[in-house]
Parts: sequence; C-alpha cells; structure tokens
Amino acid sequence: MERKAISLHDKLSSFTEHWAPKVVADYNGNDVIVVKVKGEFVWHSHPETDDFFLVLKGRLTIQMRDGDVTLGAGELFVVPKGVEHRPVAEEETHLLLIEPAGTPNTGDPATAVAKPRI
Amino acid sequence: MERKAISLHDKLSSFTEHWAPKVVADYNGNDVIVVKVKGEFVWHSHPETDDFFLVLKGRLTIQMRDGDVTLGAGELFVVPKGVEHRPVAEEETHLLLIEPAGTPNTGDPATAVAKPRI
Repeated sequence: MERKAISLHDKLSSFTEHWAPKVVADYNGNDVIVVKVKGEFVWHSHPETDDFFLVLKGRLTIQMRDGDVTLGAGELFVVPKGVEHRPVAEEETHLLLIEPAGTPNTGDPATAVAKPRI
Repeated sequence: MERKAISLHDKLSSFTEHWAPKVVADYNGNDVIVVKVKGEFVWHSHPETDDFFLVLKGRLTIQMRDGDVTLGAGELFVVPKGVEHRPVAEEETHLLLIEPAGTPNTGDPATAVAKPRI
C-alpha cells in the first residue's frame, strides 16, 4: 500500500472543471472524492445511500423539497438516502464527498459522469 | 430529519478532552466523528474496517510497522483494515474520523471508550 498523506489542496489544485468529481482515496468500498462546483446541479436522489458533503472552501446550498441547508467552509451535512436534493453554489466551492464506489452522481447511471482517480 | 449544517468548529469548541471521540453525524451506518488528540495513542488495528483520518488542525503522525505518515491540516489518510497503527500528535490536533458505528477506538471493546453524540 502507498504510505502517503493525501493533500486535499494539492488534489484540488490539479484540475479546474466544475461538477467533475475525482476520487482521492478508498474507505471500506466508498470513494473519498473532491469536486469543484459552481452553479446549480440537477435535482436527484440516491435510493441506496446517504450523501456526505463537507465544504472545504466556498459556500454550498443543498436544496431539499422541505427546506434548504447552507454550508460554509468546515461545515458538513449528510443527505439521507432517498431524499431528493439539488446542490447549488453561487461562487466556486470545493467539496469533500464520500459515497459508495459506483454511485451515479446524478442518481441515474444514464446521466452520471465517470469519477477518475487522481 | 434535522435540516441543519454541522459546524466542525462549533462541535470542537464544545469540549476540551483529548482522545475522547464525539459523534457528529451518521453516514450509512458509519459514525462521523470529531476528536482532539495530543500525545501518543496505543498501537492497535481494526480487523474489520479501514480507518479514515482527516486533520482539521495541527499535525498527526500515524505510525505503522513499515513506515509513518504525517498529516497536516487538510490532509487525509486511510489506514487499511488490519494494519497496525499508532496515532501520535506533538501538539493538540483536531481530527475528523469516519468509522462503522460501534468500532472500538482501541481495536478492543474491553479498552475502548464510548463515543457520545454531540
């Protein structure tokens, strides 16, 4: 195994695209992911998994049908499985996500993006 | 469910003890934990689970039998299941941990501490 610290700053400095999640580590079959987001994502849900968000930089609103949660840097929220949500960021925002490997980011394999390892 | 951002800073400000993990959120049956550490923990391993460490503040060395990894703020490392390790921090260091609910922090239920929710 590789014995090396994973710097979130270095990983985030290595790409510029928005809504293009990158896998940086594994935890028990879950992908540990960094992503840069700006603007509105699509409404979606994950019937089989909770959705973990930690804001590293910026500000993220997670819209849900019964109320929104807004996260600043150093704040986290777990969207429970099956709960419809839409992430929205007015400014470029950097996130740490954790989700089971293979989870489609849109909730739908037909529209999901691949998540390369960096 | 509670629709509320979880501030890691606020959670960490609410206690002072070292090596006293506190659960702040759930993710798919895993505890999301904050903990303040200083000094040396015990050598241990978790045969059934990987061990996720993210340094929020300070500096942590994770000693392993075949080499150490040192993490600063914004750096993470996942100790693979079964790998013997000992966390050591010279200064007070704040960590985010993720582990399956019920995982003994020492690897041994007989010596493990309880993890209250805050």
